[in-house]
Amino acid sequence: MIKNSSTKDLNLSSNERLSLKNTSVFKPKTYARVKHNGYKIFTFHAGFKKKFDDLLIIVFDELVNCSIVYSKTSTPSAPIIWDKKHNNGKVKALIVNSGNANAHTGKEGIEIINDYVKSLSKHLGCKKNQILVSSTGVIGELFDPNIIIKQILKLKNKQENNLLGAAKSIMTTDTYPKLAIKKTKINGKEIKIYGFAKGSGMINPNMGTMLVYIFIEADIPSLILKKLLRNNLDTTFNSISVDSDTSTSDTIIIFSLKKEKANFSHISNYNKLNSTLHSLMKDLSLQVIKDGEGLSKLTKINVLKAKSKNEAKNIALSIVNSPLVKTAIAGQDPNWGRVIMAIGKTGEKINQNKLEVSFGNNLVCQNGSINKKINAKKLNKYMKNNIIEINVNLNNGSKYHTVYGNDLTHEYIKINADYRS
Amino acid sequence: MIKNSSTKDLNLSSNERLSLKNTSVFKPKTYARVKHNGYKIFTFHAGFKKKFDDLLIIVFDELVNCSIVYSKTSTPSAPIIWDKKHNNGKVKALIVNSGNANAHTGKEGIEIINDYVKSLSKHLGCKKNQILVSSTGVIGELFDPNIIIKQILKLKNKQENNLLGAAKSIMTTDTYPKLAIKKTKINGKEIKIYGFAKGSGMINPNMGTMLVYIFIEADIPSLILKKLLRNNLDTTFNSISVDSDTSTSDTIIIFSLKKEKANFSHISNYNKLNSTLHSLMKDLSLQVIKDGEGLSKLTKINVLKAKSKNEAKNIALSIVNSPLVKTAIAGQDPNWGRVIMAIGKTGEKINQNKLEVSFGNNLVCQNGSINKKINAKKLNKYMKNNIIEINVNLNNGSKYHTVYGNDLTHEYIKINADYRS
Repeated sequence: MIKNSSTKDLNLSSNERLSLKNTSVFKPKTYARVKHNGYKIFTFHAGFKKKFDDLLIIVFDELVNCSIVYSKTSTPSAPIIWDKKHNNGKVKALIVNSGNANAHTGKEGIEIINDYVKSLSKHLGCKKNQILVSSTGVIGELFDPNIIIKQILKLKNKQENNLLGAAKSIMTTDTYPKLAIKKTKINGKEIKIYGFAKGSGMINPNMGTMLVYIFIEADIPSLILKKLLRNNLDTTFNSISVDSDTSTSDTIIIFSLKKEKANFSHISNYNKLNSTLHSLMKDLSLQVIKDGEGLSKLTKINVLKAKSKNEAKNIALSIVNSPLVKTAIAGQDPNWGRVIMAIGKTGEKINQNKLEVSFGNNLVCQNGSINKKINAKKLNKYMKNNIIEINVNLNNGSKYHTVYGNDLTHEYIKINADYRS
Repeated sequence: MIKNSSTKDLNLSSNERLSLKNTSVFKPKTYARVKHNGYKIFTFHAGFKKKFDDLLIIVFDELVNCSIVYSKTSTPSAPIIWDKKHNNGKVKALIVNSGNANAHTGKEGIEIINDYVKSLSKHLGCKKNQILVSSTGVIGELFDPNIIIKQILKLKNKQENNLLGAAKSIMTTDTYPKLAIKKTKINGKEIKIYGFAKGSGMINPNMGTMLVYIFIEADIPSLILKKLLRNNLDTTFNSISVDSDTSTSDTIIIFSLKKEKANFSHISNYNKLNSTLHSLMKDLSLQVIKDGEGLSKLTKINVLKAKSKNEAKNIALSIVNSPLVKTAIAGQDPNWGRVIMAIGKTGEKINQNKLEVSFGNNLVCQNGSINKKINAKKLNKYMKNNIIEINVNLNNGSKYHTVYGNDLTHEYIKINADYRS
């Protein structure tokens, strides 16, 4: 394997740009405390980043079931190609490095993974296909697998870390670690669902990844696990967008820890799990979007009374991703004309004369034209909030969808363009 | 009609933001000189803008044929709704105001047009449906039609203006007027095709419009005129994008002036006209994109050897619109990883291992991985150019497409977010 020096010469994006980014206004004051069971967490400073831990290894006490959803990209990273090819839903260990995405690295990228997975499987006495891999960071750079193998060799005497440490070790330009926990009771026994995530949205400055790891303290059959995950994606992680750019490496993995056994295909049990998981995924996805690159405001776009859910989502995403809407919100400008533009550019067959748009509860237009009774003072005050809610009522049906995003600021340009100064 | 004061209180986007915008690096040193015949040009300072001419009236000596293409938006402006409803391809006059887009203004917006068109038709002694209207500027504000009618009443004694004056009168935040002329010979006689345009891309800061007016000094039947226009759209105005936001008011009108008569359905004559028109439309569309909001660089994205033209265009647009690619280019960073990401997010079924990407003639990746022989010095030097060409070779077929765009800079944020200081 090659430590490619030519990209270094190019001064390509590295993970040392953390210092450029101000902390998100939404940075939590405290983090969820989660005591984990059924697996061990190890974190290392392998050298992908200058200062911080950049390698995470999770070793399960026994084989667990998992279900995975990957980025729909046509240019998937080597870890995604590897996991898809090898893993069959049974996992002994997970290994994640941050600082290099191992994406668009061809056959060599796959060989890199093979080298360090071989080393870990030997250490753990498990099969290679029982190890899952993820990588986050810059695209297109090769690295020496010995960077990781060296740390694997230290595993034996390594002290365990906790979930907060795990969440920190996979950060790149995130300004805070993302952790959440939810609980439910099934057959009188408490079941915890918790997880951690990284990412400044669908994308982070190094074009790395959104990575999400979720643990359910229950023994759930693979098929149900898969159903649970897919059921809740659309309204959580698939409804956030920082900048409309989709990563090569986005990955969500849900692990079923063998603790509580119950009949999870029973409808009431399933529903309980499902709603608890939804609540957890919503929480984590909001933590991701609240750390969007350079954001000063969070936007929540509700599209109501649409003909179909698809129409509602399409319009909501068009608004949340429009550079002109995003910059207007950054400028605290209730520029509803740009919202109308973003609705229109979808080409959805709406009735323009039935449109109602409001910022918070400030109705700005109705019946296809301006609301002449706008309370400008109240509206201008509303635009100073950290969270801006735009409600679009199509008056055209009964379906709805909500998406979350953020504004587009100088800080975003600074993070993504200015670091070569 | 109502001069709506509530939006004024809101400090909504106005057209007085011109001063914020630096002049484009691509501002031409001289403008095309065109002597027009067959119509009269009048421009006025009606009061939509503080300082500059903001109303254009073109009066044709006789009825001419025209063909029109409008924005595909679902929220079209009142002028688009009006023209679509009334005009049948015969035109006596065109009236354009800049500073107010008359968009999402409902029935009142239509009444505003009716009022001033009635006045103009009376003045000219023509039918209302022989008058075309366009508006560009802020969305969602009503205005008093008397602003325009007052100027119509002055038409009788008004001095004529020229095409440069016409191009200037429809500018909003454009930093220069856009004019071009091309010539061809048919049956030994020279035919001029010329036109003017406005817009800082698909969109301008006030969410106004891209407006394009083209004149052919020949008498061309409506059906052929329509075919000529549509033939050339895809590779010109439909292949530029400043920020992926589509206006509510985009309009391209082509007028056939009754000067030269020839058999334009004859294949060799048609082909000559077609290629001359293409050259003109390409020229004007590049002038628009070269005045993109806050740009520091022009980007040209060539996608080659695709399975279909559609695949090539889809990938090219994904790259040209990606905020992360755009900011990388602003930062003079040859971040080809972001190009790979933008290719991937289209979901097109490409073969990642066949991908070749180059910046200018600097090959950065091939066979699905980095080109280890990159000449970093040469590449870094290339990124300092004003025009950055990204070539993506899919090695997957024989189709290709090229699109133009620009980078994403602090200036863009300034123009669109910061004016409420």
